[in-house]
Amino acid sequence: MRNKYPIGILGATGMVGQRYIQLLEDHPWFEVAWLAASDRSSGKPYGEAAKWRLDTPLPERIAKMTVSPADPDGAPKIIFSSIDAPIARDLEPKFADAGCAVLSNSSAFRMTPNVPLVIPEVNAEHLHLIEEQPSRKASGGYMVTNPNCSTIGLVMALKPLEERFGIEKIFVTTMQAVSGAGYPGVASMDILDNVVPYIGSEEEKMEAETLKLLGKLEGHGVTPLAAGITAHCNRVPVIDGHTECVSIQFKRKATAEEILAAWDEYKPLAGKDLPFAPKQPVQFSALPDRPQPRLDRNREKGMAVTVGRLRPCNLLDWKFVLLSHNTVRGAAGATILNAELLASLGKLETLAAAHA
Amino acid sequence: MRNKYPIGILGATGMVGQRYIQLLEDHPWFEVAWLAASDRSSGKPYGEAAKWRLDTPLPERIAKMTVSPADPDGAPKIIFSSIDAPIARDLEPKFADAGCAVLSNSSAFRMTPNVPLVIPEVNAEHLHLIEEQPSRKASGGYMVTNPNCSTIGLVMALKPLEERFGIEKIFVTTMQAVSGAGYPGVASMDILDNVVPYIGSEEEKMEAETLKLLGKLEGHGVTPLAAGITAHCNRVPVIDGHTECVSIQFKRKATAEEILAAWDEYKPLAGKDLPFAPKQPVQFSALPDRPQPRLDRNREKGMAVTVGRLRPCNLLDWKFVLLSHNTVRGAAGATILNAELLASLGKLETLAAAHA
Amino acid sequence: MRNKYPIGILGATGMVGQRYIQLLEDHPWFEVAWLAASDRSSGKPYGEAAKWRLDTPLPERIAKMTVSPADPDGAPKIIFSSIDAPIARDLEPKFADAGCAVLSNSSAFRMTPNVPLVIPEVNAEHLHLIEEQPSRKASGGYMVTNPNCSTIGLVMALKPLEERFGIEKIFVTTMQAVSGAGYPGVASMDILDNVVPYIGSEEEKMEAETLKLLGKLEGHGVTPLAAGITAHCNRVPVIDGHTECVSIQFKRKATAEEILAAWDEYKPLAGKDLPFAPKQPVQFSALPDRPQPRLDRNREKGMAVTVGRLRPCNLLDWKFVLLSHNTVRGAAGATILNAELLASLGKLETLAAAHA
Amino acid sequence: MRNKYPIGILGATGMVGQRYIQLLEDHPWFEVAWLAASDRSSGKPYGEAAKWRLDTPLPERIAKMTVSPADPDGAPKIIFSSIDAPIARDLEPKFADAGCAVLSNSSAFRMTPNVPLVIPEVNAEHLHLIEEQPSRKASGGYMVTNPNCSTIGLVMALKPLEERFGIEKIFVTTMQAVSGAGYPGVASMDILDNVVPYIGSEEEKMEAETLKLLGKLEGHGVTPLAAGITAHCNRVPVIDGHTECVSIQFKRKATAEEILAAWDEYKPLAGKDLPFAPKQPVQFSALPDRPQPRLDRNREKGMAVTVGRLRPCNLLDWKFVLLSHNTVRGAAGATILNAELLASLGKLETLAAAHA
Repeated sequence: MRNKYPIGILGATGMVGQRYIQLLEDHPWFEVAWLAASDRSSGKPYGEAAKWRLDTPLPERIAKMTVSPADPDGAPKIIFSSIDAPIARDLEPKFADAGCAVLSNSSAFRMTPNVPLVIPEVNAEHLHLIEEQPSRKASGGYMVTNPNCSTIGLVMALKPLEERFGIEKIFVTTMQAVSGAGYPGVASMDILDNVVPYIGSEEEKMEAETLKLLGKLEGHGVTPLAAGITAHCNRVPVIDGHTECVSIQFKRKATAEEILAAWDEYKPLAGKDLPFAPKQPVQFSALPDRPQPRLDRNREKGMAVTVGRLRPCNLLDWKFVLLSHNTVRGAAGATILNAELLASLGKLETLAAAHA
Repeated sequence: MRNKYPIGILGATGMVGQRYIQLLEDHPWFEVAWLAASDRSSGKPYGEAAKWRLDTPLPERIAKMTVSPADPDGAPKIIFSSIDAPIARDLEPKFADAGCAVLSNSSAFRMTPNVPLVIPEVNAEHLHLIEEQPSRKASGGYMVTNPNCSTIGLVMALKPLEERFGIEKIFVTTMQAVSGAGYPGVASMDILDNVVPYIGSEEEKMEAETLKLLGKLEGHGVTPLAAGITAHCNRVPVIDGHTECVSIQFKRKATAEEILAAWDEYKPLAGKDLPFAPKQPVQFSALPDRPQPRLDRNREKGMAVTVGRLRPCNLLDWKFVLLSHNTVRGAAGATILNAELLASLGKLETLAAAHA
Repeated sequence: MRNKYPIGILGATGMVGQRYIQLLEDHPWFEVAWLAASDRSSGKPYGEAAKWRLDTPLPERIAKMTVSPADPDGAPKIIFSSIDAPIARDLEPKFADAGCAVLSNSSAFRMTPNVPLVIPEVNAEHLHLIEEQPSRKASGGYMVTNPNCSTIGLVMALKPLEERFGIEKIFVTTMQAVSGAGYPGVASMDILDNVVPYIGSEEEKMEAETLKLLGKLEGHGVTPLAAGITAHCNRVPVIDGHTECVSIQFKRKATAEEILAAWDEYKPLAGKDLPFAPKQPVQFSALPDRPQPRLDRNREKGMAVTVGRLRPCNLLDWKFVLLSHNTVRGAAGATILNAELLASLGKLETLAAAHA
Repeated sequence: MRNKYPIGILGATGMVGQRYIQLLEDHPWFEVAWLAASDRSSGKPYGEAAKWRLDTPLPERIAKMTVSPADPDGAPKIIFSSIDAPIARDLEPKFADAGCAVLSNSSAFRMTPNVPLVIPEVNAEHLHLIEEQPSRKASGGYMVTNPNCSTIGLVMALKPLEERFGIEKIFVTTMQAVSGAGYPGVASMDILDNVVPYIGSEEEKMEAETLKLLGKLEGHGVTPLAAGITAHCNRVPVIDGHTECVSIQFKRKATAEEILAAWDEYKPLAGKDLPFAPKQPVQFSALPDRPQPRLDRNREKGMAVTVGRLRPCNLLDWKFVLLSHNTVRGAAGATILNAELLASLGKLETLAAAHA
């Protein structure tokens, strides 16, 4: 048995940081080796620095680890990062320059031309952009990002349709869980018996990221998909799980059967044996009132996207509903699956060796 | 001072029935005189038959009234009805045939050609359809309906835009309160920490009713508006207040200022002195995260619609959010305002006289 | 008509500060004249400094008022204060020394021997403690406090029983609304689908304040009631309204009828014509599942306490449930009613004159 | 490997019935072999008859099973029952008379003298009462019950304290999840932004069952514990997990350390290797604001009880908070653990043989 890759976590006390820790417990390839957070937390035992909000116990070993300063010195060579964009903009390149593979859930560099924005099932080939990053040559380090929590479910449901029918127009309205805003995040006074029809910058992120993810790697960058997209983003009183209502127009007409088949047969990671890859990434529920966040968010340990209510649209071609777990598939699990893909491609080996 | 019109309520124990009672308490023109409900309730004091779910006390006088059987015999000549469509289909014509003005919140006859579907601010002229009803000639009785709770807010926000710019396409996603499903209605197991992306027949109702309401009275019926419309309807954990995300395309281009002016200047009932008519039917909130159901549903005693977040749409022309109180503006208040309009048009006088 | 008393609000942007503004709009005796908040807000228009969270619109006049620094200079002579205890400890005496009547919702001085902790219906006579305060002689200024939001409902329900039967033991478990923690206060991640069985210092406050409120004014202070009391305090997913389960033991046995009569006949402010005094301060609901926060919190504009489920207790004498609106009766309304009582006693006249 | 015991489920479509199915999937000893529900469901495939409300998928095999009529004919010899008391009163003895071991979650026979009410960790010896049942001699069949969902967590926390210190008085206030009321159960209109301080018969059940569970097997029945107990029961907006505030008085004084030790060392099933037995049945959380339902209900797959906030009580000796998963530990898991205990005692062998 080979040794596990040691993983460092930037933003370890946040909601996504906690999910990294939860999901990496018992991971066959990776092991949490280093935790960093804000200066306020630095130097404290993690169990004291973090207000653990997940429904599985904080592992004892992690509780006792001392939170490190957010500095590459002494950090392992693989970094999972989930920190606020303004801080990420400064910190993540430092780690890449120091020779780390920085796998980031932050929005800071998602739209940067030479930084791949990747969902393994969707656009693994975009990872070649790593080689466009100056740090890669200098130190071996690089940055890879995963999408916003509301984007990822949408793109996973769209990709198999784009491949077969071509996408021209996308309407999407989201109903997003409060965990997407971190902790303390959304005030209870704002969301009990309420809906907040606004999430700062979310619509812009969804629109831009979706087209980059569905775009083509060409030359030194990605040409975004030439499709129209508009997003309406809302916060609702749900703990985990983003629900999205989608209307879509194709280039070529498609029947309901063809769409269902496209989703059903979409298994691009089959045979790769990535531990976090869902067997059936897009799962159709035939029940008339599904998917629902409380009932469907944990399918395939939260890594699958559930779709339902496929029906004709009066304005575009088809309407449907999708659901994905925003802090698993939409954040921590996305980073982990990116790391697994990079490991399977040999892009972590030398880094890990360097650390050992 | 003239005497108040005596009002009978069909479906008095339901959620909308309770709202009728609450809103008619101290109404200057109308007075609850008769309450009918299912056979199970008939003969009991209302206070015992109904499980009062509103946050103002059940008036003593009403609590003591005996629930009558749902029969025109002994009923007053003005009937507010909010009963299930299958029962309404049978009962409401009986009351009209018996000479009653039946003002209904039920969906049974909304799309019937000779039955007006009316929002006073939007299409008062459709009331002429009353004269097309055979019962009108025979007994003086007639039926008038108000729209579905999710339709009414949408149409009120659209009407001033349709008048000035012409509407071509409407995309709408709703996030609807649980009170819209009546009592007991939505099970708590279905909605706590959850969203249900399905409400039976709701999308079809919204699409059809919107076009009839915005249509033209021509010959013996209404020619629906020739626009495209698609609705996605969802249930969310909110007590009262439907929130709707709208994208819209006009025939003539409009600026944001022109749209805001259209809403601001839309006061079609000004000067009519109808007690339930909101002074400003469509109210724009400039705050970036509004409207919100908990904060905005009670504007103008729940009779105003709040709009916000007007911004360009990548696919159609504009996007915005709207909110209306589903059991006040969207149900009981809608019936009452229809009745006030009919009274101001002299369509209730003879009926009331007949009763006296 | 006499002029209204000008009122200054310390902590005007907080949840209780907002309630002061809402409740004083159209108050017949008082008028908001001055708003102060933290340095961060000072100098800004109130409409910009505050995130208004109430379901009635922020009055235009107030929105335009400039937030003042929290300094007695330029402030009116009547101050309503709802600020954090550590800040109150410093600021409130400054205002009293400057000749202000400081009516405070803060916990800082509630248990101070020469500061009255008052509920007008319960212990108006404790106001004599004002004369024990050095500032009273020096500048005319003084401090009066109202109880914690969880205490006030309990004490109002207990006082008529203490008068007639004597109280020996009190068990109380609270289920408290999130608005009691201010804004942003309780994180939605902490309370959706959850209960938090802990509120810092709340149990200690309830226990101590209850005995002082039910105590006797003797010599230069209050001798607390000699009764045993234990409190269990919890936070639940409710916006407004604290529900409390109470078991109680009396000195003299009482029948259910006697208890109901004690509550029913308890109208100590009758005839005083205080605008915020509820006509029936303690209201019994005979329905088996009441009181409930959503349905009962707004009785008498939120100033009444509702009790229900009176039944024998296996351990003490009787059990019952009570409910009160925590930010109205339990906070802002409590301060206002204290001010009204002081005005009716002539304790605000000279102050107001001084200001004029 | 021995064959699994075939299990029949009475009330299979209800919330607890669904939990039986979920928890028995992959159970090493038991296998669902027969499903019965009301006449309305009988004859349908289970997947159609039941509205599955759990967050794991309904197993395919179960979805296809045909729902049987609730009749012993053709049923297996081990029956898990969770049906309404009035129906249970009639049905359960029929199955016992037909030679079945009826393990029931229903309240119908819990207080019947010759029916054991059992929590394996608490009073396994009460199972001897089986032999007092006439059916046992006649057909081999018998009835065993598990407690009400609110009782079980309380008794598990109390038992180790009763053993060491003796219990004199118990004061308990519950905040119970909606799943305890089944499906559709609590209406969303009743519980969003609300608390319902009443659950029919719940207080009486808790009080009586607790004393029987902590009582002594003597002669032909159980002498209940001679302690005082009073319960206040409330429904709160939580999906799963009952939270309880407890004050307790002992016969012998105990220190906090002694109480913690009693809980910590309480492992009465250690060594028995029952698959559903939690390793640490009562788990103390030292965090100041725990236990909380969302965070702690799933400890040890929902079979452990979490306690916290141990502190002195002003009236009795100690106060603490406890939490248990009401449909796992408090219902379906309780029945399963009772069945495991019976299997380990050889009380299911002959029955299973009879069936084979």
